[in-house]
Amino acid sequence: MQRTLARGLTGHEPGSTVTIQGWVHRRRALSGVTFVVLRDRSGLAQVVVKDPTTLAAVAGYGEETVVSVTGTVAANASAPGGVEVVHPVFEALTDPAQTPPVELWRPTLTAGLPSQLDHAGVSLRHPVRQARWKLAAASLRGFRDTLDARDFTEVHTPKLVGSATESGANVFEVDYFGRPAYLAQSPQLYKQVLVGVFERVYEVGPVFRAEPHDTVRHLAEYVSLDVELGFVRDHRDVVAVLRDVVAGMVAAVHEHASEAVRLLGIDVPVVPAELPVLHFREALEVAGAPADEPDLSPAHERAVGAWGLREHGSDLVVVEGYPTASRAFYSHPDPEDPHWSRSFDLIFRGVELVSGAQRLHRHADYVETLAARGHDPAAYTSYTDAFRYGVPPHGGFAIGLERWVSRLAGAANVREVTLFPRDLHRLAP
Amino acid sequence: MQRTLARGLTGHEPGSTVTIQGWVHRRRALSGVTFVVLRDRSGLAQVVVKDPTTLAAVAGYGEETVVSVTGTVAANASAPGGVEVVHPVFEALTDPAQTPPVELWRPTLTAGLPSQLDHAGVSLRHPVRQARWKLAAASLRGFRDTLDARDFTEVHTPKLVGSATESGANVFEVDYFGRPAYLAQSPQLYKQVLVGVFERVYEVGPVFRAEPHDTVRHLAEYVSLDVELGFVRDHRDVVAVLRDVVAGMVAAVHEHASEAVRLLGIDVPVVPAELPVLHFREALEVAGAPADEPDLSPAHERAVGAWGLREHGSDLVVVEGYPTASRAFYSHPDPEDPHWSRSFDLIFRGVELVSGAQRLHRHADYVETLAARGHDPAAYTSYTDAFRYGVPPHGGFAIGLERWVSRLAGAANVREVTLFPRDLHRLAP
Repeated sequence: MQRTLARGLTGHEPGSTVTIQGWVHRRRALSGVTFVVLRDRSGLAQVVVKDPTTLAAVAGYGEETVVSVTGTVAANASAPGGVEVVHPVFEALTDPAQTPPVELWRPTLTAGLPSQLDHAGVSLRHPVRQARWKLAAASLRGFRDTLDARDFTEVHTPKLVGSATESGANVFEVDYFGRPAYLAQSPQLYKQVLVGVFERVYEVGPVFRAEPHDTVRHLAEYVSLDVELGFVRDHRDVVAVLRDVVAGMVAAVHEHASEAVRLLGIDVPVVPAELPVLHFREALEVAGAPADEPDLSPAHERAVGAWGLREHGSDLVVVEGYPTASRAFYSHPDPEDPHWSRSFDLIFRGVELVSGAQRLHRHADYVETLAARGHDPAAYTSYTDAFRYGVPPHGGFAIGLERWVSRLAGAANVREVTLFPRDLHRLAP
Repeated sequence: MQRTLARGLTGHEPGSTVTIQGWVHRRRALSGVTFVVLRDRSGLAQVVVKDPTTLAAVAGYGEETVVSVTGTVAANASAPGGVEVVHPVFEALTDPAQTPPVELWRPTLTAGLPSQLDHAGVSLRHPVRQARWKLAAASLRGFRDTLDARDFTEVHTPKLVGSATESGANVFEVDYFGRPAYLAQSPQLYKQVLVGVFERVYEVGPVFRAEPHDTVRHLAEYVSLDVELGFVRDHRDVVAVLRDVVAGMVAAVHEHASEAVRLLGIDVPVVPAELPVLHFREALEVAGAPADEPDLSPAHERAVGAWGLREHGSDLVVVEGYPTASRAFYSHPDPEDPHWSRSFDLIFRGVELVSGAQRLHRHADYVETLAARGHDPAAYTSYTDAFRYGVPPHGGFAIGLERWVSRLAGAANVREVTLFPRDLHRLAP
């Protein structure tokens, strides 16, 4: 018999026969009747067991046992979706499940985070953990759809690289057929080179940081959403694309993860048609910070976030023009005053979510800047050589998927929204 | 002035003023006139230069210099799209480009493959190389769209893993904060565990093989398109999804990369409503091979491919039921005769493109099979533990992106369709 999903039960007339399949999410045994809540990928369904033989069988199906249930649809206003399945015949599709190491049937996961992570394969089954990832999956879809519609080309660049460029620190070393290689900290250099090929590119992929800090915001491996585009006038053209990308991610969350939004009770941001922008100097003023601060502290970012809400009713604020010396070497200085750069951060609810900039595009500028910053230009030639052959003015940005979702879901720790997090201490499961 | 793309020129009336931007693809200087072919992300446009001052300027713009050209649209049947730009005013957006290390303006790339790869950032600009990647990007889009429409959840699983499972050989070792970690050879174990969470999952991401073979088919890092789904009856349910996925990839190639198909002159396969299937035993017969062969050789696969064309007019053939002993430990044996497995390969034009199977889903089966094959079950517990808690009958498959595109494009070497290939000898650019 064709399988019906839990969310599809309401489409069946009371009295009709259906087969549902899923996990025994919870059993409640009363006198002479057991309610079995079945969980499948679409949600929950209630099955009412009264027949003594079936009651005995169900008593042996521990929570998480996978079953197929054929029965009759009946109306019940107090059941999920207003319907339940009665007169069920159960068939176990797996051996009876052992008692799970974390309780999955409670509305919230009561296990501590380390325990959740130790048993990630099971704790991710909890509807709250599933819903958080659904936000991530929907966001990815919105990210790509927005860029596909704007003529961007998806690319995949190597994660194994020959030199520890960009920043020498915090890279993982790999034994590559007997010689050293490194895990890419970002696709930065490749996406810039590929602007010379496709003009507009994006990549979704893992990046690796040998991050020695054990904080709620840092992971050793995370998913980076990278964008780069050519033929820009300045970084404001990049900010305009960023605005559309975030709006597209938000729209996709509403379209493809509305059930998760509801379950988590989260407040999805409204993305204004134009993002409020503060220059770095103004951001310091807003934060009441000295004018010679080289960067924004977390407290400054919170102040900027509060300003955006207060002045523009916006959860999102762009800060542009960070001091050139505080930014990566490939950031384009402001031609009017090279002390400031054509870089920007997007502050989402008081926390930096995105970094971006117009980049240098002239070969001579790279040679000069690398030397001035004390880098060895030889380590960068396979990257900078492309700029000898015409790479248009360009810029881009990167969004950390886990950071985005953790802010969106209001999760205190980025590990709560990551399927299998990696950090200083954790390499399994 | 708003930029017009090369492919958009035909939408402008002759006599109107346009600005186009891109790379100087080629200059042909005749007596008193120079034709500049401009390349942008959409294609080529011809610019006719007659003004002496502009002629002198253009003489200084070596091929690959990035320029902005404002001029007048004029009809010319012999120009790309039937229109060209006359009375141009040039503005260089970069310094004059140096002479590229590979000639990009010829219809085919004449540089040898090693030279192309050494200068990948530049040689990828060649329209043929761009077009090959456009096949890849379109295929990825078709892959995801097909699965999104079927209620699959996109996942991202860690590439840094704590133990060298699945096969002990050919893994890259990483220095992970002073202890050994490994690069994942596939998301196999994670995607199976995630069937226990989301029922249906897919992942697009890098996989790593410390592949000591220097062949035209092997890379040390490639993009794997992984699919896994639960609540299957047997592997035939998986094959049905595979059929739809390949059909979706083909449809997306037509929809999003038609220009690449035309430029490359390739023959895109027609995917039959049902893929022809041979049992492994029958495949050996078709190939005229002894009945006790443990696996299909490349010659056997070619014979199977020829059979598919001859008997079914199909470029695609499924071979199912490979000997259990020849397949990975998690392959589900045929319950009727466990000598054979519920596994399959998809043969595309005589070469294996996809491997898949129904997998084991009972914890006891894993314990037994790992022991029987001489694996250390302890190394697998963080994976196999999930099966104690109910993972439904499931199966899946993986498609190698580069292998798919190389067969589609008729490329002899997988490196010809990879942006920045990694192999035994190559770690840069």
